[in-house]
Amino acid sequence: MIREMTNDDFELFWPTFSKVIKEQETYAFEPDMNIEQAYSLWCETPLKTYVFVEDGIVLGSYYIKPNAMGPSSHICNCGYMVSVEARGKGVARKLCEHSQEIARVLGFEAMQFNSVVSTNKVAVQLWQKLGFDIIGTIPKAYKHGTLGYVDSYIMHKLLA
Amino acid sequence: MIREMTNDDFELFWPTFSKVIKEQETYAFEPDMNIEQAYSLWCETPLKTYVFVEDGIVLGSYYIKPNAMGPSSHICNCGYMVSVEARGKGVARKLCEHSQEIARVLGFEAMQFNSVVSTNKVAVQLWQKLGFDIIGTIPKAYKHGTLGYVDSYIMHKLLA
Repeated sequence: MIREMTNDDFELFWPTFSKVIKEQETYAFEPDMNIEQAYSLWCETPLKTYVFVEDGIVLGSYYIKPNAMGPSSHICNCGYMVSVEARGKGVARKLCEHSQEIARVLGFEAMQFNSVVSTNKVAVQLWQKLGFDIIGTIPKAYKHGTLGYVDSYIMHKLLA
Repeated sequence: MIREMTNDDFELFWPTFSKVIKEQETYAFEPDMNIEQAYSLWCETPLKTYVFVEDGIVLGSYYIKPNAMGPSSHICNCGYMVSVEARGKGVARKLCEHSQEIARVLGFEAMQFNSVVSTNKVAVQLWQKLGFDIIGTIPKAYKHGTLGYVDSYIMHKLLA
């Protein structure tokens, strides 16, 4: 069900991706990115990108990459996105659990999220349930589509 | 004295840059980067890169770039490096003050450092004096060249 993402998968996923970035409620991505830029960012820049597929339908995706270089390259960073139709079905949890397994296989010792928008309570609570701590709060870090400036959290989990 | 960095400046700066990354005490950069990779990282990826020159000698440099995209692109990120011979002469302070002016000119509303190694006390104290707060601590984030795993700080200053 969860496997590496192909170019064709990304085309199926693009309506979700485009909707999410245009809403400007969760991701610090350019809201008007085109599909080529999005593919590069989500599938080419990261180390690996996975997709959650069920009955030929893309329910969600995540990427994994080192969060920094050299002496900090043992910490990875992931981003998760779930299709609108698939919300509330545990897809994000499954993606995050899968990413932690893959992170360990790839030799990472910790996982860090650099920008969890504080008003995205569903995500914050899910990451906390999965063992992530809020290790920092960036004041007014995110210009939310409807709420204006809101804080972002930095979240972190040791994988050892 | 502080002006935009040229390719020639970077060649003069390279011995400092190379020494700093090889020490693995301050920067989360690949320690064995070559000069082309370093130039790309320090001078091409960022928005702008400046150099502090006195009597034809490069005393230090910094880059400035957005810390994230879209709804978080109002926060910038900078990195500073001072030549070994120029330490203790206020060069880092002058570079940081200059970068805050440039940040305001470019329209940034805050500045964030993502990885200030906690054992780099000279830097931590200087940034605090210049108005930056420690807004987060990343446990065991940095494999220090001589001390092993040490924490890193996330530091932040509102520029408004």
